[in-house]
Amino acid sequence: MTDTILQREDLAGGIARLTLNTPESLNALSDAMLAALKAELGRLAQDTQTRVVILRGAGKALCAGHNLKEMQAGRANPDKGAAYFADLFARCADVMKAITTLPQPVIAQAHGIATAAGCQLVASCDMAVAAQGTRFGVNGVNIGLFCSTPMVALTRNVAAKHAFEMLVTGEFIDASRAQEIGLINRIAAPETLEAETLALAQTVAGKLGAAVRIGKRAFYDQAGLPLDKAYAHAGTVMVENMMLRDTDEGITAFIEKRKPDWHS
Amino acid sequence: MTDTILQREDLAGGIARLTLNTPESLNALSDAMLAALKAELGRLAQDTQTRVVILRGAGKALCAGHNLKEMQAGRANPDKGAAYFADLFARCADVMKAITTLPQPVIAQAHGIATAAGCQLVASCDMAVAAQGTRFGVNGVNIGLFCSTPMVALTRNVAAKHAFEMLVTGEFIDASRAQEIGLINRIAAPETLEAETLALAQTVAGKLGAAVRIGKRAFYDQAGLPLDKAYAHAGTVMVENMMLRDTDEGITAFIEKRKPDWHS
Amino acid sequence: MTDTILQREDLAGGIARLTLNTPESLNALSDAMLAALKAELGRLAQDTQTRVVILRGAGKALCAGHNLKEMQAGRANPDKGAAYFADLFARCADVMKAITTLPQPVIAQAHGIATAAGCQLVASCDMAVAAQGTRFGVNGVNIGLFCSTPMVALTRNVAAKHAFEMLVTGEFIDASRAQEIGLINRIAAPETLEAETLALAQTVAGKLGAAVRIGKRAFYDQAGLPLDKAYAHAGTVMVENMMLRDTDEGITAFIEKRKPDWHS
Repeated sequence: MTDTILQREDLAGGIARLTLNTPESLNALSDAMLAALKAELGRLAQDTQTRVVILRGAGKALCAGHNLKEMQAGRANPDKGAAYFADLFARCADVMKAITTLPQPVIAQAHGIATAAGCQLVASCDMAVAAQGTRFGVNGVNIGLFCSTPMVALTRNVAAKHAFEMLVTGEFIDASRAQEIGLINRIAAPETLEAETLALAQTVAGKLGAAVRIGKRAFYDQAGLPLDKAYAHAGTVMVENMMLRDTDEGITAFIEKRKPDWHS
Repeated sequence: MTDTILQREDLAGGIARLTLNTPESLNALSDAMLAALKAELGRLAQDTQTRVVILRGAGKALCAGHNLKEMQAGRANPDKGAAYFADLFARCADVMKAITTLPQPVIAQAHGIATAAGCQLVASCDMAVAAQGTRFGVNGVNIGLFCSTPMVALTRNVAAKHAFEMLVTGEFIDASRAQEIGLINRIAAPETLEAETLALAQTVAGKLGAAVRIGKRAFYDQAGLPLDKAYAHAGTVMVENMMLRDTDEGITAFIEKRKPDWHS
Repeated sequence: MTDTILQREDLAGGIARLTLNTPESLNALSDAMLAALKAELGRLAQDTQTRVVILRGAGKALCAGHNLKEMQAGRANPDKGAAYFADLFARCADVMKAITTLPQPVIAQAHGIATAAGCQLVASCDMAVAAQGTRFGVNGVNIGLFCSTPMVALTRNVAAKHAFEMLVTGEFIDASRAQEIGLINRIAAPETLEAETLALAQTVAGKLGAAVRIGKRAFYDQAGLPLDKAYAHAGTVMVENMMLRDTDEGITAFIEKRKPDWHS
């Protein structure tokens, strides 16, 4: 690990762990952090060795959202920041979408707080594990800035009335509530958070990588399609998956009650 | 408050409270009640003083759905009521959609029962608080009239199998179950229902009104859009929000650890 | 009941019960089973006597998904099975869609395991009752074949992160968890599973059949439509329902506090 604002560790078994590393700003999604995330996700998208990605934060929290001081500085521009803000939200959305389109599953490892764009980060990951005591909020409304872009990810995870309440009250929910409403998958004790997140990553990394990649892509591609079209698409994907030599081996091994000898 | 079928009170802090006031018919959505709701929601849409709306019912229940006697009377028409029914369901849907498009958040305050179009009313509000003991049902199927229009709102709140079961069995669910499946946000003891609903309304009314309005509109506008388009829309909305003078002040106040001095 | 691979019983009150009857293969969805299901669902679609359908499995489990040996045999074809697989997944999707488009509600009665396409079967039914102890999984990923087509049905039942976790971990969930996340409606003790599923079927069969048919069709037709279009469609459907003589009688009977005298 280096001392950069976004650290990457390549752990055993094809697990890459990214650590947001500006704890003094609660790992705010500053211009620099967004650029670092974009670059690293771009590298991971090309990286055939990495099978699963974990995203966590250094210090007291996963992420407290945008860097407000940096945003306010944009108001000094001749257009009062309008162009900078538009670009900022576009770059932020690009990072969130890059998580969704990344070939590998991404697991958020949340602790402390995950607020505003930090909560959006959790919602945007494919899965999330949180330490007991973590608090989640889309609380921009408290300072006069409704969390409209975090809302996009949030409402694709939780029921309408739950999302609306979080957005207009700005109130925090705890990890139990987050799990109940579908924002996170699992809760761990703070002292086992790292291990439990890693265990989930190892479970996924132990599957046939090509099948997981095919499946993740299909997961988002078929979402929202009418039933007919979703099945047509998923059927094509299943055939592609069936034609893999390793899938042939996987099914044969299962029938023969032995371990598969996979090459990818 | 006057003795009209739909009472409006303007409470402190920009909270308008509407009370369905035909308790003898369990506040049925009669032609007159639908017209009163449409008119009042129309006035509220233009009303910049009102920040949050509460919708409740006088007497034993929030609302028991359509006025069945009035509907049956329509069968005396030469077309056996076909045109009247079509118009009735269109007017009812208009009221439900007017809740969604109203600039201000609307909170349903439910007690007693909320059935058929009464359950649809709860589902159509942005948030809902219910008294312990409230029962919810889309039970038209029990009298041979499947709750097809209430289904539209219900299925946009709760999971498919939960909605289907309610619709074809006609069975009631209680407040706990309603909360579990996402139909309501909070449960209160009957004696504190009014106070707890008001407290939720006050929380929302305490936010920057312009931000809440921008956010509510965006909430429904981005729903159902593909991720790309949803983010493009939400990004534009966030910029609009950022350009508000009060948002500038809100963020600055937060950075300076003081209360914002808001003018809207 | 005959000794066919798909048994049909016509029970009292218009309830048809289908039993997948190849317990030696855990009722795998073989080519023959898919053909039998397609044919029987085709007959039921024309059958005006049947009001509700129950789908269950003989032996130790509801259904363990596709017949893997049969699939592997397809690899002997000159195209290594590509055309056969495409056809297989299309036929499987046709059966799942035939459940959705069947005029009558279909209730899955699950026990033992419901995995891969067997889990898809549960997700595709309108409602599901499961025995305590039933395990659900979309675990094709364990043998290198991501459950892409089961995913289509699963993601239309449960929240995104819940579905994703099941799909990439291949782990089983138990009946309680399945109920919590919306995959099934009810849990029964193993010894009362049959009776409780039947009781649910009888409740639905006791409603006005025409109203249930109109409602089920509208349920799926309006899903995913924008609010405006969904209401326009549902309004038309409600009028159609109102014009039924039996609905007139049902509402009149309710107003007169007597039982309806229905003819359908």
